[in-house]
Amino acid sequence: MNMDYICTMLENKNESRTSLSELGEFKLIEHLTRGAKIHHQSTLKGVGDDCAVIGGQEKLKVVTTDLLVEGIHFDLSYMPLKHLGYKAVMVNLSDVYAMNANAKQITVSIAVSNRFTLEALEELYAGIHLACEMYEVDLVGGDTTSSNKGLLISITALGEVEAEECVYRSGAKPNDLLVVTGDLGAAYLGLQVLERERQVFEVNPNAQHELDKYTYLVERQLKPEARKDIVRLFEDLELVPNSMIDISDGLSSEVLHLCKESKVGCNVYENKIPLDQQVISTCEEFNLDSTTVALSGGEDYELLFTIGQNDYDKVKGNPNFTVIGHMTEQEEGVHLITRAGEKVEMIAQGWNSLKE
Amino acid sequence: MNMDYICTMLENKNESRTSLSELGEFKLIEHLTRGAKIHHQSTLKGVGDDCAVIGGQEKLKVVTTDLLVEGIHFDLSYMPLKHLGYKAVMVNLSDVYAMNANAKQITVSIAVSNRFTLEALEELYAGIHLACEMYEVDLVGGDTTSSNKGLLISITALGEVEAEECVYRSGAKPNDLLVVTGDLGAAYLGLQVLERERQVFEVNPNAQHELDKYTYLVERQLKPEARKDIVRLFEDLELVPNSMIDISDGLSSEVLHLCKESKVGCNVYENKIPLDQQVISTCEEFNLDSTTVALSGGEDYELLFTIGQNDYDKVKGNPNFTVIGHMTEQEEGVHLITRAGEKVEMIAQGWNSLKE
Repeated sequence: MNMDYICTMLENKNESRTSLSELGEFKLIEHLTRGAKIHHQSTLKGVGDDCAVIGGQEKLKVVTTDLLVEGIHFDLSYMPLKHLGYKAVMVNLSDVYAMNANAKQITVSIAVSNRFTLEALEELYAGIHLACEMYEVDLVGGDTTSSNKGLLISITALGEVEAEECVYRSGAKPNDLLVVTGDLGAAYLGLQVLERERQVFEVNPNAQHELDKYTYLVERQLKPEARKDIVRLFEDLELVPNSMIDISDGLSSEVLHLCKESKVGCNVYENKIPLDQQVISTCEEFNLDSTTVALSGGEDYELLFTIGQNDYDKVKGNPNFTVIGHMTEQEEGVHLITRAGEKVEMIAQGWNSLKE
Repeated sequence: MNMDYICTMLENKNESRTSLSELGEFKLIEHLTRGAKIHHQSTLKGVGDDCAVIGGQEKLKVVTTDLLVEGIHFDLSYMPLKHLGYKAVMVNLSDVYAMNANAKQITVSIAVSNRFTLEALEELYAGIHLACEMYEVDLVGGDTTSSNKGLLISITALGEVEAEECVYRSGAKPNDLLVVTGDLGAAYLGLQVLERERQVFEVNPNAQHELDKYTYLVERQLKPEARKDIVRLFEDLELVPNSMIDISDGLSSEVLHLCKESKVGCNVYENKIPLDQQVISTCEEFNLDSTTVALSGGEDYELLFTIGQNDYDKVKGNPNFTVIGHMTEQEEGVHLITRAGEKVEMIAQGWNSLKE
């Protein structure tokens, strides 16, 4: 090592200028990992999908990792620690299922400030253990350390999938049908409801909570479930999607990811986007546009996938699935076809933690 | 989900009492992961070794994860970001090599506050990419997000090893020889030297840096190398240790881990502990006891392993290895035999981030 370098560094720290918020999270990852060279044949897919894919003898291993930071991704004033632990696992398992893989193991690392007690961490881990139990996943490692401020959770999940059943973001083809599981926008609205409750409570600690009308929304925010059942359903249906991604940052962001990685375009039909009745009524109450909430809300943890038209019979009439559009040639672009029949270019308004 | 629970939680957050510093990091992990049930046959080893071990068709997969927090594990006033990136990878690879496995893939997640620029993160990743290049490891995934304060790096490393060559902490037997690679205590002293330089510089910004005498110490602190070469050497020597651990928290802490997991005792001979000449002279200058520094200093990233006595010929005379003691029956306890011939019980004084 060059001692001059160290001395220079001790004297004059290099000050440079590009702010991270200009770049945004996706571009930042892309930028920082661009130089990564692949050394091992077993590394079938590195950065750029829901998981990395590692070759094995028979099955492939998939790996994904997520970081949750207090004050950025969660607020403990309305997120019970047990739910947070559960949700932190779901966020990662959702990425595994988005590869059509089965989740097998997780590691959990946490950094905590002194304000947390052992009992608080036990609550957090109760949620983690519950998630492992419900989803049959093994907690195999981790690290705990202190932080200067708040709580941070870093989870890595490992899964397995037969090589011919692994589904990437990059497999969508023109004329594929675009299908979504469940319904969208509820988790985002649940957050708005909880935030309003918190504000009411701050002003008047004796106020009655009125959450009954919003049960589904609050549950989707505080206790989301990853779609393990869909991976099983695909197996039962003998259906392997051409491409798949999980919906964590809002529908529009994920549609754009699929299109970019698959080099295709897409038309999404506004009137097909599945919305729960509580989403529709609460959007009216909050004076929000339900389509915007579905497109940009995030945290749904549903799956978005494409299938060839000859597989349509396999999803038709199944209450888990809604066909919301179709893929096109790349030159045609990515559009939302509004209820009025207008064709609007789709842009990513997904939640960007670096812009907060 | 029970809405009453949510309402109660919004009104009255559960306050509980056991402070984390009472417990310490190792006990905390043990405590929090105790409830983890194993669901998959392929999960051969979960929490409690340097890595988790996952069964495959032929080779086993090992997984490890580490979290580095600014202000706790590193200080950017004397740690250049490129070195930090490199070191963060080494910390994880060292755990993989401690299983006698070959490191193959890593994921890297970072949380950064707004004070970091893109150029700063590029420096960090330059170190990460360099480490991947030098150690032939593939960067396969990660997550970037913002933090409220400072920089946090979470790395997960994956490796592979033939089942019959995987070395656990739990395999040591009474009468095994205890062997260490390289020399100990230098990284800790490097940190003391850098800390002193920083203080001098704060008082007098025009002071001349005098780091020439401490080149080795500073290098061990700022640019440690994980012992990939030792895993290869074992292969060449056709030597499979009975047990192994990497030295990250100081020799005494690691000896105690081996003894606990293997249910054996140990005698370590003070006069055998390998020390570099710069460690000896700098300990004199700083008025520190070199044995204490080696036992409790930490961040050496050397390997500590045990072998049967009939393998002694394989390590004898090899400059990479020093035999520093031998294992005993568990009832005999864990002791340091001092230069004066005294038998002192060994206690873990390893660095505990939760006590800071």
